[in-house]
Amino acid sequence: MSKIAFVGLGNMGGPMAANLVKGGHEVHVFDLSEAALKHAVDAGAVSSPSATVAVEGANVLITMLPAGIHVESVLVSRDALLDKIGKDCLVIDSSTIDADSARNLSKAAADRGIEFLDAPVSGGTAGAAAGTLAFMVGGSDSAFAKALPILECMGKNIFHAGGAGAGQVAKACNNMLLAIHMAGTVEALNMGINNGLDPKVLSEIMLKSSGRNWSLEVYNPVPGVQEGVPASRNYEGGFMTDLMCKDLGLAMDASQASRSPVPMGSAARGLFNLHQAQGNGPLDFSSLLKLYQQR
Amino acid sequence: MSKIAFVGLGNMGGPMAANLVKGGHEVHVFDLSEAALKHAVDAGAVSSPSATVAVEGANVLITMLPAGIHVESVLVSRDALLDKIGKDCLVIDSSTIDADSARNLSKAAADRGIEFLDAPVSGGTAGAAAGTLAFMVGGSDSAFAKALPILECMGKNIFHAGGAGAGQVAKACNNMLLAIHMAGTVEALNMGINNGLDPKVLSEIMLKSSGRNWSLEVYNPVPGVQEGVPASRNYEGGFMTDLMCKDLGLAMDASQASRSPVPMGSAARGLFNLHQAQGNGPLDFSSLLKLYQQR
Amino acid sequence: MSKIAFVGLGNMGGPMAANLVKGGHEVHVFDLSEAALKHAVDAGAVSSPSATVAVEGANVLITMLPAGIHVESVLVSRDALLDKIGKDCLVIDSSTIDADSARNLSKAAADRGIEFLDAPVSGGTAGAAAGTLAFMVGGSDSAFAKALPILECMGKNIFHAGGAGAGQVAKACNNMLLAIHMAGTVEALNMGINNGLDPKVLSEIMLKSSGRNWSLEVYNPVPGVQEGVPASRNYEGGFMTDLMCKDLGLAMDASQASRSPVPMGSAARGLFNLHQAQGNGPLDFSSLLKLYQQR
Amino acid sequence: MSKIAFVGLGNMGGPMAANLVKGGHEVHVFDLSEAALKHAVDAGAVSSPSATVAVEGANVLITMLPAGIHVESVLVSRDALLDKIGKDCLVIDSSTIDADSARNLSKAAADRGIEFLDAPVSGGTAGAAAGTLAFMVGGSDSAFAKALPILECMGKNIFHAGGAGAGQVAKACNNMLLAIHMAGTVEALNMGINNGLDPKVLSEIMLKSSGRNWSLEVYNPVPGVQEGVPASRNYEGGFMTDLMCKDLGLAMDASQASRSPVPMGSAARGLFNLHQAQGNGPLDFSSLLKLYQQR
Repeated sequence: MSKIAFVGLGNMGGPMAANLVKGGHEVHVFDLSEAALKHAVDAGAVSSPSATVAVEGANVLITMLPAGIHVESVLVSRDALLDKIGKDCLVIDSSTIDADSARNLSKAAADRGIEFLDAPVSGGTAGAAAGTLAFMVGGSDSAFAKALPILECMGKNIFHAGGAGAGQVAKACNNMLLAIHMAGTVEALNMGINNGLDPKVLSEIMLKSSGRNWSLEVYNPVPGVQEGVPASRNYEGGFMTDLMCKDLGLAMDASQASRSPVPMGSAARGLFNLHQAQGNGPLDFSSLLKLYQQR
Repeated sequence: MSKIAFVGLGNMGGPMAANLVKGGHEVHVFDLSEAALKHAVDAGAVSSPSATVAVEGANVLITMLPAGIHVESVLVSRDALLDKIGKDCLVIDSSTIDADSARNLSKAAADRGIEFLDAPVSGGTAGAAAGTLAFMVGGSDSAFAKALPILECMGKNIFHAGGAGAGQVAKACNNMLLAIHMAGTVEALNMGINNGLDPKVLSEIMLKSSGRNWSLEVYNPVPGVQEGVPASRNYEGGFMTDLMCKDLGLAMDASQASRSPVPMGSAARGLFNLHQAQGNGPLDFSSLLKLYQQR
Repeated sequence: MSKIAFVGLGNMGGPMAANLVKGGHEVHVFDLSEAALKHAVDAGAVSSPSATVAVEGANVLITMLPAGIHVESVLVSRDALLDKIGKDCLVIDSSTIDADSARNLSKAAADRGIEFLDAPVSGGTAGAAAGTLAFMVGGSDSAFAKALPILECMGKNIFHAGGAGAGQVAKACNNMLLAIHMAGTVEALNMGINNGLDPKVLSEIMLKSSGRNWSLEVYNPVPGVQEGVPASRNYEGGFMTDLMCKDLGLAMDASQASRSPVPMGSAARGLFNLHQAQGNGPLDFSSLLKLYQQR
Repeated sequence: MSKIAFVGLGNMGGPMAANLVKGGHEVHVFDLSEAALKHAVDAGAVSSPSATVAVEGANVLITMLPAGIHVESVLVSRDALLDKIGKDCLVIDSSTIDADSARNLSKAAADRGIEFLDAPVSGGTAGAAAGTLAFMVGGSDSAFAKALPILECMGKNIFHAGGAGAGQVAKACNNMLLAIHMAGTVEALNMGINNGLDPKVLSEIMLKSSGRNWSLEVYNPVPGVQEGVPASRNYEGGFMTDLMCKDLGLAMDASQASRSPVPMGSAARGLFNLHQAQGNGPLDFSSLLKLYQQR
C-alpha cells in the first residue's frame, strides 16, 4: 500500500483516484473544485486543503491536469511540489501535454534526485471509471517498475514507450494516426454511399481487406452501421472533436520540435479544425462525416 | 464444369487461368503475348488464335486487362465480343478500371441480354498464384450466384458489393483507405523514431491502441520491424508505388464522378505521386518512408 | 472576312459568336437549343439546321462545348465534321476539356490534313460579352497566326502556349494555381479576422508584401473589403464553385496523365469539393470562406 | 535624435542597427557575440557590456532575437529590462515570434506603464542592409506614431496592422500565404514542364491571368526563367527553407491559439517539412521544386 497524492480531479482524474482507493491505497487528493473534492471523499479519498498538504509524506504523486502550463505550475513554479516532496516520492504525470514540457519536467525532477514518469492515458471517461485505461509511459526502467502496480489499479494496457517524454510522443503518434484513419474511413464510406453502396456492406468488405483499421472495427462513423457507437446516438458522448483538435495540436508541436514532416496528420488536422470551426467541437470526432455532407 | 474463355494472361491473369484449369474447367485463353499463351497451355489451358475464337461456345468470359479502354476494346469496339457470345454466357471483368466504365460495360451487356459482373481483385501476384485473391463484385444477385463457384477457384474472400460498378467502387474505396493509413503509419512511426522511440515498441503500442490498422498489423513500413514484409527486403516485391498511384487515380475518378470530397485520399495521392516522381515507382508502396527521410 | 461555323451557343458561346459578327465575319451557328439559336440570329448570325450544314464552305470552325466527349462527338463520331470540312478549314476548339482529348482531336485532324487549335478561354461570361476574354492556345505557329485575327474579335490576351494540347494544359495550370491562392487567401484572411485584425488592413498589408496574388488584388473573398466583387453581393455571379471543381478535375487528369504530383492542387480540390458537397456549388468560388466559419 | 538601445545583432539586427546610426541616432548595442558587437561599433554604434547597460537612459529599446523565449528572457525574466527602463522608453520587438508571446509581452509592459510594439520585418538580409525592410506593427496608435520615424530609418513599408500581437499575426498570415502560392507555383510550373510547355511561356501566361502571384512576379522557382533570383543561382542566398519552416510553425501556433482552420497552410507546411527532412533546409525555399523531381 502506498500513500498517494493525487492532484487534479476532473472527469478523468476523479474516477482514477477512486480506483486507487479501491486498490487499497491511501489517496490524498486536491483540486480547486469543492465538488470534485467532495466526490473523491465520497469514494474514500482524503481531502487536502492544498496540493502542498496533499504531498506530505507521499510515496507517489500523480498529476492529472489540462495542459503543460498547469503541470509546470503545480510541480515547479507556483506550488513547486518538486521542492516539497522527498527524493523517494515517484512523480507520475498522467496529463496529456507536449513532449518537450514532459522532458523539461523530467529534467527538473532529476535535478532534485526525483524520478518522474510521463504517463498519458487513453480510453476516455468510460475507461477511467472501469479501470481499463491504457497508459503510455516514458521514463526509466526502475521508475516504470515502481509505477506498474499503481497504474494497474487504474488501467489495463500499460506500455513502456521509452525514456523521458516517450509516453507523450507515443500518445501523440497514436492519436494522430487515429485522426488520419478516422478521416480516411469517413471519406471512403461517404464515397461508397454516394455511389449507391450500402455502408454496412462496404464496411464489412474493407474490414476483411487491406483498408481495415480501428475506426472501422469498433467506431464506425456512419449512423446505423454499428450499435453502441457515438454515430448511432447522434455523435453524443465519445471523444469530442475539441479534444481531437487539442491532441492534433500536440502532435504538430511534436512534429515541429523534432523536424518530422506530418503531411497526413496536417491534412487530418485541417479537416477536424474546419469541422470544429463550423460549430461541432462538442460532438464526437466521428461526426466529421457531417463535414462531407449537405446540411 | 464450365467452358471458360479467358482474355488477358498477364502477371495476374496467367495464374488465375491456371487455377481455373485446376478447378476442373475447360479454359480457352487468349493474349497478344505468345509467351503468356505458352505458359497457360503448359498449365493445361487451350490456346486460341484470337479472342473471337476463345469465346466460341463459352459459358463464361473472363477479362483481365490493364485499363478501361482495353476492356471496352475487347468487349464492345475492336473485338466486340459482346456481339459474338451467347446470351447465356456470363461476362466477368476482373480488371481494375474506373466505375463509370464498368457501369457502361454492364449496360452494353444488358442491352444485348447478357449478364455482366465487375469483379476486381486484391491480393497481388502471390494471391493469384495461391488462389487466395479477394474479389469485390458488382452486379445482380443472380449473376453473382452463378459466378461464385468460378470465382472460388481463384480466390478466398468473395464479396458482393452491390449493383453494377459496385465492385470497382469498393476496391477504389478500400485502396484509397489503404493508401491513407499506410501514409499515416509511415509518418507516425517516423515521428516516433525522430523522437528516440523504438519503432518496434511504438508499433506494438499503436497496434493495441486506437491507431491500429492493416499497415501496422501485416505490412510495417519500417525495415526490421516485421519479418517477411517488403520493408525488410529493400521494398522489393509487394505492391508497387506505380500501382498504388494508378489505383489512387481511379479513386479520384470515382470521387469526381460522384462529387465526393476526398481530401485525405488526395493528400495521400500527393505523397505517393511525389515519391513516384522522385524515381521510386517500382518499389513497394510502403517505401513511402523514404520520402520522409534524408537521402 | 471569314466564313465561320460556330457550334455551341451557351452562356459563353452565344456572346462570342455575336462578337465575331461585330468583327465583320459571316457566322453560321448551330446549337440544340432553339432559344440559343434565336439569340444568335438576333445578333446577326445565320442559323443552321445542323452542325453539318453550318460548316458548308466554312474557312473556320469554332466549337464551344461542355466537355471532351461532346467535342469528340461533334468532330469525329456522331457529326464527324472533320470528315465534312475542307482541308483549308481551320478548327478552333474553345471548350475547356482535358489535354489528352485535345491532343487526340489534334491528331485526328492532322490525319485528315486539317489544322486544329485547342484554345480554351478565361474571363467568364462578362469577358465573353465584352470581347475581353483571354485565350490560351495550343497548336502550330502557322495555325496560331491564322487564328489570331479571329480570336482578337473575341478576346484581349491571346497566348500561344505551345503545341497541341498546350492551351488546355496552360489553362489547367493557371486555374489550379488560382484555386490554390484563393483558398490560401481565404484562410489567411480568416485567421487574421479570428485574431482581431481588420481584413481590409490585412489585405492591404499582404497586397504590398510577399503574400500578394490575384485573389487579393481583384477578387477579395471577404464581404465588404472590395466593391464590385462576388463577395460583396452574396457570392452571386462570378465563377461558380461547380465550375472550379470541374476545372480542378481537369487539372487532376492532366497531373495523372503526366505523372506530375499536385499535392497543393489536390488540397485545394479537397476544400472546394467539401464546399460543393455542403450545397454551395452555385455560389462564386470565393464563397469558400463559408467553409471556414460557423453557420 | 533618440538614444536607442539595440539588443540582438545577428544577420538582420546588425545592419538594422547600422541604419539607425546612419539615421542620426545614438545607438547602444548589445549581443553575446564579440564579433557582432565589433561590427556594430565599426558602423558607429556604442558597445555595451550588457543589455542592462545598453538601456540606461534609452528612449527606445529594440530587440531582434531568434524566438519568443529569448525575448521573454531579455525583457522579463533573466535581464528583466522592463524593470530597468523608464516609462517613457518605447519598446519595439522586431523578432519574429508567436502572437501569444507578443501579447503577453505587451501586457507585461503595460503592467509597468510601458508602451510595447511587436514589429516583425520582412525583406531578408538584403532589405536589412538596404534599409528597405517591411515592418508589420501591432500596438497602440500613439506608440505606432512614436515608432514611425525610427522604423523609417530601417524600412520602407511600415504597416500598422492593429493592436498588440497584430504585427506577428499579419506576418504569420502573409508568410503562410507566401508558402502556399510558392508551393502552388512550383507544382503548376512543374506540371507544365512535364507536359512539354516552356516554363517561361507558361509563367508569362499565368502572370497575365488569374494565377498571378508574387512568386511568379519576382521569385520564379524554375532555374533560368528569371534573372537574379535564387533559382538562377542554385537556390543559394534568399530565404532559407529552414526559416520558412519556422514561420509556418508560428502560423500553426497562431491557427491553434485562435481555432482557425488552415488546411492549405498545413499542406504547404507538410511539403516544406518533407523538403527540409530530405536535407534541403539551407537552400532557398523556392528550391521546393526539387521535391517534385527525380534526383
